[in-house]
Amino acid sequence: MIQVFPIILAAGQGTRMRSDLPKVLHPVAGKPMLQHVIDTCQNLTNDRLAVVYGHGGEQVKQVIQGERIVWVFQAKQLGTGHAVAQAIDLAPDEAIVLVAYADTPLIRAETLQNLVNSLEPAALSVLTSKPANPTGYGRIVRDEHGAVKCIVEEKDADAVQKTIQEINTGFMAAKALDFKRWLKQLTPNNAQGEYYLTDCIQLAVQEQLTVNAVLCADPMEAEGINDRVQLARLERIAQQQQVKALMLGGVTVADPARLDIRGQVKAGKDCFIDLNVLLLGAVELGDRVIIEPNCVIQDAIIGSGAHIKANSCIEGAVVGQDCEIGPFARLRPGTLLAEQAKIGNFVETKKAKIGKGSKVSHLSYIGDTEMGEAVNIGAGTITCNYDGVNKFKTKIGDRVFVGSCSQLVAPVTIEDDATIGAGSTITKTAPAGQLTLARAKQMSVKGWQRPVKEQK
Amino acid sequence: MIQVFPIILAAGQGTRMRSDLPKVLHPVAGKPMLQHVIDTCQNLTNDRLAVVYGHGGEQVKQVIQGERIVWVFQAKQLGTGHAVAQAIDLAPDEAIVLVAYADTPLIRAETLQNLVNSLEPAALSVLTSKPANPTGYGRIVRDEHGAVKCIVEEKDADAVQKTIQEINTGFMAAKALDFKRWLKQLTPNNAQGEYYLTDCIQLAVQEQLTVNAVLCADPMEAEGINDRVQLARLERIAQQQQVKALMLGGVTVADPARLDIRGQVKAGKDCFIDLNVLLLGAVELGDRVIIEPNCVIQDAIIGSGAHIKANSCIEGAVVGQDCEIGPFARLRPGTLLAEQAKIGNFVETKKAKIGKGSKVSHLSYIGDTEMGEAVNIGAGTITCNYDGVNKFKTKIGDRVFVGSCSQLVAPVTIEDDATIGAGSTITKTAPAGQLTLARAKQMSVKGWQRPVKEQK
Amino acid sequence: MIQVFPIILAAGQGTRMRSDLPKVLHPVAGKPMLQHVIDTCQNLTNDRLAVVYGHGGEQVKQVIQGERIVWVFQAKQLGTGHAVAQAIDLAPDEAIVLVAYADTPLIRAETLQNLVNSLEPAALSVLTSKPANPTGYGRIVRDEHGAVKCIVEEKDADAVQKTIQEINTGFMAAKALDFKRWLKQLTPNNAQGEYYLTDCIQLAVQEQLTVNAVLCADPMEAEGINDRVQLARLERIAQQQQVKALMLGGVTVADPARLDIRGQVKAGKDCFIDLNVLLLGAVELGDRVIIEPNCVIQDAIIGSGAHIKANSCIEGAVVGQDCEIGPFARLRPGTLLAEQAKIGNFVETKKAKIGKGSKVSHLSYIGDTEMGEAVNIGAGTITCNYDGVNKFKTKIGDRVFVGSCSQLVAPVTIEDDATIGAGSTITKTAPAGQLTLARAKQMSVKGWQRPVKEQK
Repeated sequence: MIQVFPIILAAGQGTRMRSDLPKVLHPVAGKPMLQHVIDTCQNLTNDRLAVVYGHGGEQVKQVIQGERIVWVFQAKQLGTGHAVAQAIDLAPDEAIVLVAYADTPLIRAETLQNLVNSLEPAALSVLTSKPANPTGYGRIVRDEHGAVKCIVEEKDADAVQKTIQEINTGFMAAKALDFKRWLKQLTPNNAQGEYYLTDCIQLAVQEQLTVNAVLCADPMEAEGINDRVQLARLERIAQQQQVKALMLGGVTVADPARLDIRGQVKAGKDCFIDLNVLLLGAVELGDRVIIEPNCVIQDAIIGSGAHIKANSCIEGAVVGQDCEIGPFARLRPGTLLAEQAKIGNFVETKKAKIGKGSKVSHLSYIGDTEMGEAVNIGAGTITCNYDGVNKFKTKIGDRVFVGSCSQLVAPVTIEDDATIGAGSTITKTAPAGQLTLARAKQMSVKGWQRPVKEQK
Repeated sequence: MIQVFPIILAAGQGTRMRSDLPKVLHPVAGKPMLQHVIDTCQNLTNDRLAVVYGHGGEQVKQVIQGERIVWVFQAKQLGTGHAVAQAIDLAPDEAIVLVAYADTPLIRAETLQNLVNSLEPAALSVLTSKPANPTGYGRIVRDEHGAVKCIVEEKDADAVQKTIQEINTGFMAAKALDFKRWLKQLTPNNAQGEYYLTDCIQLAVQEQLTVNAVLCADPMEAEGINDRVQLARLERIAQQQQVKALMLGGVTVADPARLDIRGQVKAGKDCFIDLNVLLLGAVELGDRVIIEPNCVIQDAIIGSGAHIKANSCIEGAVVGQDCEIGPFARLRPGTLLAEQAKIGNFVETKKAKIGKGSKVSHLSYIGDTEMGEAVNIGAGTITCNYDGVNKFKTKIGDRVFVGSCSQLVAPVTIEDDATIGAGSTITKTAPAGQLTLARAKQMSVKGWQRPVKEQK
Repeated sequence: MIQVFPIILAAGQGTRMRSDLPKVLHPVAGKPMLQHVIDTCQNLTNDRLAVVYGHGGEQVKQVIQGERIVWVFQAKQLGTGHAVAQAIDLAPDEAIVLVAYADTPLIRAETLQNLVNSLEPAALSVLTSKPANPTGYGRIVRDEHGAVKCIVEEKDADAVQKTIQEINTGFMAAKALDFKRWLKQLTPNNAQGEYYLTDCIQLAVQEQLTVNAVLCADPMEAEGINDRVQLARLERIAQQQQVKALMLGGVTVADPARLDIRGQVKAGKDCFIDLNVLLLGAVELGDRVIIEPNCVIQDAIIGSGAHIKANSCIEGAVVGQDCEIGPFARLRPGTLLAEQAKIGNFVETKKAKIGKGSKVSHLSYIGDTEMGEAVNIGAGTITCNYDGVNKFKTKIGDRVFVGSCSQLVAPVTIEDDATIGAGSTITKTAPAGQLTLARAKQMSVKGWQRPVKEQK
């Protein structure tokens, strides 16, 4: 198999983004757009690829992940031809160089593979598309055999040429040896004073070589991002694609336009994801998971049959089978719920291991806690895990009943079958099986007068 | 009037749904799609209709509601003609049999009535539509009088026939007597080895009977659901229809694409429903009700002038006139609020009857409670209604003031005009008009040293 | 410069809105539609403009803000010509009268200026548009020079005229002198018995004056609102326009279809606004502000680097630089957070001044409070600011640590470096540097029996 050597152009400034972040680092579906293109290109080769960078260079190199990336610095942005020229010598002569763009995050590996495959017997292959409105783009003029004769820029196009729907996307493939020869012949004799990669087409034609045009099935694949309106547009398309795949796999999505995925989602059978849900990072759903509206779930494993009620936030948590969460629950990192546990409304958990069937149903904070099975935590219970400088642990046994509005001042242990009276501040071990409480005597004041409105 | 006898085909497996739930039970706008078609068909007859079922049969019969349904089991799915044949003998000879499909939930009664009405003087009426893209569907070939000559399947269509926009939806109407005769003549001489109902058209034409084509005004009415992408598409259309009707009736909807209704909503005049609201079950809104963003409201009655603030969840509750709810309120079943009551942020109520003008403004749980008028419940108040096995009632009189962070341990009574001191655990009756509290003495520890960071 | 005198027609009843609110007061993007048109028209003149009102008159005059508005009452709605006639004598003879409509809120000043500018040398200029479907509108018939010959109403149009895309929007400009002459000649000889402003075109043509047609670039600018479906449609377009401007200015918006702005938003560089956010009133965002999903923010200033987590509600608050808010936080009016403050989940603040780096992380209510720097407020802390009739202040010094589930009963002072023990009810000054607590002794009851299930 012939080696493919991708060169990804990522040096543009992206002024129209009006951002301190280099354009190619702006995320689409939670991943920097350059990372999308790198990941896609790496499907075509087991060897290295080159990224030509410029603006925001060090930041770009820090953020982007992946091996087999050769970073090539382009000090001045003198055009696409100049950019490719910086990297071309890294490619073996016989390799097929594939020129790709860091600001087209939706390009598919299959499309690039088609482009590469179509090279034989042509000398140069260019990827084309037919957008709804081709105005402003270079039109593809084909000869009677379908080969590319030339590309006519908008300003040079005559009336007939302007009716051509097929445009140049900029993606190209050719043998490194050919590119090396053409790139040396490029000149900046144009209004911008730049070296245009597109001119290679003319050079190939002049050499009487065949230039192939490969039409991209969906024009949005080759759409570039230059401002945040375009960024949002491709973000939406990326989301649609992901959500569609999820639906075809057997997940019911109440409104595909209102499910956002920024990461990797695995889902079992017959899950239901309701309106306006956001999934981030690595999220795994078992079978029959129900996620109600307005939930934000990040890096979490949700067991089969679990029911996540409306307006819940989950991050870094494992939710066991048949758990019931929310509404208005917040599970923070380190929350591990065994099966059938219940975390109810206005409850926050953090580094909390909660046993099978245990319930924290209302208005509580459970942090740095290990809790057994079949525990019932009353409303308004707080684990006081922090003394201002240190964090301490709370241990709660099995079948414990904690009355409402209790404070468990860690480090503290509530033994199996203990009962804590409502409103107690517990600072020492609560013995197994006993009722423990800390409570002042109730008293009433006869003849007491209610406050009266003060004069201001 | 001639009797109409609908036969609804509901036996398909729906493999592409990738679901354990029979396809026809997947809900659209909160109702199983088969139920939609049954409810629609029952508009055409006061007599019985037949549902031909197969996959998931028992489950289907359990879920679907309604009288005058004759269930007909189709053991093997041998095609639409075979399915209708299972049920045809239930229809009196002179009845008009209307064949409908359980996976087209948006079909309208008016359209089906048109189909039935158009039968005279034809022998067979087929419902047709003109979808944006007819590729893949059987095209309707009409003669010079507009009658149907035949239906040409995609694979048999010539270039001219492929340009025909009008397609066969599968819905048909004919006299039972005719169907009985035709069905007997169907053969499975095709690639699938199935008995096709469509072949009746050919048989009618061969008998020199007239076949009518009735064009469905909106092609989505006849769209079927085969996977969850199509399910979501029809869900969205159903939602648009419902929301449009609500708007025309005098409700302002901030974004029609972000209001979902899964049930029956009645609304008075000048209600405002803000972004991303979900209404479930039977919801009744009075006049001038405001529902802020991200509320989920199920089976509730909301009085005129009530204001439901953002991110509130209401289920099984009655909210009185001019009440103020939320944001972040959760009203659970059995909540009955008299007029001008206020339930504020991070408050949960359940089986709670709350009197006129009473306020529970923050961070409280009020359950199994009867509360009078003009009560003020301080932040952090918990009704301790559960001892681990039993639930008890809390009774609160009129004009009671409960200080913050109090626990009312049920069964307990707070009498009229009583005041509860902040932070009290109340286990016995708080007498009318008095101040009742349970509070430890405040003390300070001089020379106390703060904890220092522990070495780990 | 020639004076422009706008006359805005705002007298229509708007029956199809089915509302008690006069149609022209229904808001689009948070502002009454009449106010939109007034604000737009005032860009064309430094002098007065006239608003012709009728239905809901007094209410209209109360709600609408602005100077230089002359209110003209139209007692009976006898048509657009009659409406303009009520106001025409207010315009100096040489002024250019611009007739505009209160129910077309999206009309742009630039478009109206074009209409006015195009008047010379014509005698009358009419604004036209080319909507997707012109059916039902009056078609513009132009002569061979492009001037308007006449307007043909739908019912009078022949087959050729019905194919005309260009329609009359109703907006017109002419010298006051000319309008005065034409208006006197109008007759109600039509099916409705109304005086039609449109008939001025015919009168001008009869006088052999030139009538100009100015095409509106985007037809939605001239779209009127007659029911709540149309109201929602224009609301969505208005939102798209606003959000697009924000994106082009350098804000990333996760889904432009799910950001709503009803007011004025200023944003610094590189802000990120996630899904389903609603901004109301005057909102100012610094640089790099992150707003997570489902937040509602009204009349607030959010400092650079602040992070507003999901499902938070902010109103009338100032959030300092690098603050961390939410999820599930509610900041109410009078909340002033210094830099790096943190307000966590299920926390409500109101009239609360909170110092640099202070944290209220969970389940608390902080109201009528002044808090110093580097304070840590434990979960479940309540400032008891209300005695049923009066509100009192809580003062908290610097570096205070308040243990969980404490109640600070105002008026009360917690001095610098004080520590409050968990679960304390604090009613008197907590001295500086000391530990202050109010706590009952913990005790356990041996041999205690748990409650058993009661027989009902």
